[in-house]
Amino acid sequence: MDVGTYMHGIGRQAREASRVIAKADTETKNRALTEMARAIERDAKRLLEANARDLEQARKQKLDSAMIDRLTLTPKVIEAMADGLRQIAALPDPVGEVIGLKRRPSGIQVGQMRVPLGVVGIIYESRPNVTADAAGLCIKSGNAAILRGGSEAIHSNQAIAACVHAGLRAAGLPENVVQVIETTDRAAVGELITMQDYVDVIVPRGGKGLIERLMRESRIPMIKHLHGVCHTYLDDKADPDKAIRIADNAKTQRLGTCNTMETLLVARGIAKQVLPPLCKIYLEKGIELRGDDEARGIVPQMKPATEEDWYTEYLDAILSVRVVKDLDEAIEHIANYGSQHTDAIVTEDNARAQRFLREVDSSSVMVNASTRFADGYEYGLGAEVGISTDKLHARGPVGLEGLTSLKYVVLGDGQIRQ
Amino acid sequence: MDVGTYMHGIGRQAREASRVIAKADTETKNRALTEMARAIERDAKRLLEANARDLEQARKQKLDSAMIDRLTLTPKVIEAMADGLRQIAALPDPVGEVIGLKRRPSGIQVGQMRVPLGVVGIIYESRPNVTADAAGLCIKSGNAAILRGGSEAIHSNQAIAACVHAGLRAAGLPENVVQVIETTDRAAVGELITMQDYVDVIVPRGGKGLIERLMRESRIPMIKHLHGVCHTYLDDKADPDKAIRIADNAKTQRLGTCNTMETLLVARGIAKQVLPPLCKIYLEKGIELRGDDEARGIVPQMKPATEEDWYTEYLDAILSVRVVKDLDEAIEHIANYGSQHTDAIVTEDNARAQRFLREVDSSSVMVNASTRFADGYEYGLGAEVGISTDKLHARGPVGLEGLTSLKYVVLGDGQIRQ
Repeated sequence: MDVGTYMHGIGRQAREASRVIAKADTETKNRALTEMARAIERDAKRLLEANARDLEQARKQKLDSAMIDRLTLTPKVIEAMADGLRQIAALPDPVGEVIGLKRRPSGIQVGQMRVPLGVVGIIYESRPNVTADAAGLCIKSGNAAILRGGSEAIHSNQAIAACVHAGLRAAGLPENVVQVIETTDRAAVGELITMQDYVDVIVPRGGKGLIERLMRESRIPMIKHLHGVCHTYLDDKADPDKAIRIADNAKTQRLGTCNTMETLLVARGIAKQVLPPLCKIYLEKGIELRGDDEARGIVPQMKPATEEDWYTEYLDAILSVRVVKDLDEAIEHIANYGSQHTDAIVTEDNARAQRFLREVDSSSVMVNASTRFADGYEYGLGAEVGISTDKLHARGPVGLEGLTSLKYVVLGDGQIRQ
Repeated sequence: MDVGTYMHGIGRQAREASRVIAKADTETKNRALTEMARAIERDAKRLLEANARDLEQARKQKLDSAMIDRLTLTPKVIEAMADGLRQIAALPDPVGEVIGLKRRPSGIQVGQMRVPLGVVGIIYESRPNVTADAAGLCIKSGNAAILRGGSEAIHSNQAIAACVHAGLRAAGLPENVVQVIETTDRAAVGELITMQDYVDVIVPRGGKGLIERLMRESRIPMIKHLHGVCHTYLDDKADPDKAIRIADNAKTQRLGTCNTMETLLVARGIAKQVLPPLCKIYLEKGIELRGDDEARGIVPQMKPATEEDWYTEYLDAILSVRVVKDLDEAIEHIANYGSQHTDAIVTEDNARAQRFLREVDSSSVMVNASTRFADGYEYGLGAEVGISTDKLHARGPVGLEGLTSLKYVVLGDGQIRQ
């Protein structure tokens, strides 16, 4: 069977299944989720074995360390997948809720009803836990899902898909509510992003190359997950201890994730106080530092940063460091070089914190916290299908609400327009 | 100056102005709106004169009646423009509001802040009142607007733009918050939809041809206003008087609008009772009827409808009529042939009404009301920049909320991720 025929079959089945899951009641959907969690815990060993096969292959193919980091399943990651599904089950069902019903002068009542999007196509690389997270969020929000993971994670994804299907079966729902594409043929993506009749939204998670290809070729609206050039700005009114703790964590807690800090901005007034102890920590942890002239004047071990560095998402043990005059210069730097993903300020000055929150146009803006918190699980969404760097529809971690939209509901009693 | 240079200048100016309007306080924005309303009322005569010039030209060029209907300004339409602006001024300011702030187990507080989209590009045809409506909504929602009206409405649009600029000046805001493109060169649209650095969202309002071109060429996310193949389903449990009144109004109150009914679906059980008196009204009003065999058996004056008719948005004095078995067949017909714009049921049966509301996947679903109500003014949004038939971001009439999005706000006190 050719890829086109295969994908159109997947699409048709997804559209049919979407009608069933859209009408499913909350109890049924929650049952599927808790059964999925149970299956994942029960099959933990099998998941680790499947993942070991993927990892072996990845090392043979010499994939980079960030990719291998994202690909790795551990008992802790597996437990988080199961927890995430239970957290999703515990969340209120967004579907069918009618909000804001108001009577208008004409006599009609107008409100909005939250409804599923329909069929969601998700394209992702490496991280196999996306398979469980995305499946869980789509089910709870009443959507059918078509999942296209990376070829490097194929064994892990199929093992997780088996758990998802077990959960759907146990709840009496069709397995086709969540379909994992089995071919690694790249043409499958080309089909997925042009099946307008079958797919309502595409959620791509991946490198710049993938996203740019999809932006050119997709005929379906997307919730895009672009790169994260995340900043932490240490204000001169920052508490130095918090500043050091947060800046350390934002960079070093995990290197390969999109919410990892890539550029540290330090106010001139506090740079000499915090940069030496902070950079000592970084250097001890093996982080390569690339600074502007002023930062290098304070910490001579830094290499010089180029213009290119300020735009770069390293996803690696590298950090660019710049000394700025004040909040204004920090906001300007972020506007010029950032990717509107996640940016944080460390300050004890409330007015500056408020300005940062209002004026930095990123999907997550933070005060006195590590950028690493920017994810659906930490935000209480149960999980996320991606972190949107778009401005339309959903920004930041996309959970249940991001997978629904509001349609208008009008209740009349024979009203006509004059 | 070539079009590219001209448009990039417009884009740069819009981006700059967007930073000013994003930070403007509610009072300033409302002042601009009420001054715009005042200028429109004061200049009513001038607006009618400018419109008369456009209409004269349109008649010379033999534009169709639906287009001329949409192009026409009347004292009533002008009054509605001014009212719309005052209604927008009276609405709560959506910008800056923080919702759902909750403390998470990690100690951080997570909420969402409503923020402007940035720069909104609006492409529209004929209806000059869009110029005032779109400008008003963009100002109140903190966005800069680039407006590209049709060449057939150029004089009307420029006269309205003068009122808009007078309002902005009176409030001390830069005129560039709302720019009306002055060239009628079609290449300007090509530039507008690819200036990713300057434009955050495109709102196209126009025919299928325009939208399809934009879908192919635009590199900027869109809130699309596609065609409206709107249905009214007269259930066999309908009150016959309401059924006739609503079905009459939905078709004949105004022919050239997207929320005008194009297909009437009638349950078999009530067809013989309501079709004869209803069709008598239609025929007296000069509506051409195209029916399926069963409908033609009841009203012999109908012409036969083709398969193509069920897909067609006539925007004219033509109505297709079909007799269906029941609610299920009506829902299926709407799913197959509709455009997910606006669909209504007339019934006294609450369970059927609820099923229609849940299961018909259109941007507006109505019970016992005319589809003609589907617009921002009637819904209490003050006005609309368009009626979205998309499923992402905003569905139905797009008002202030549709021109904003929610970013995440995280408040910590030194928290780091474990």
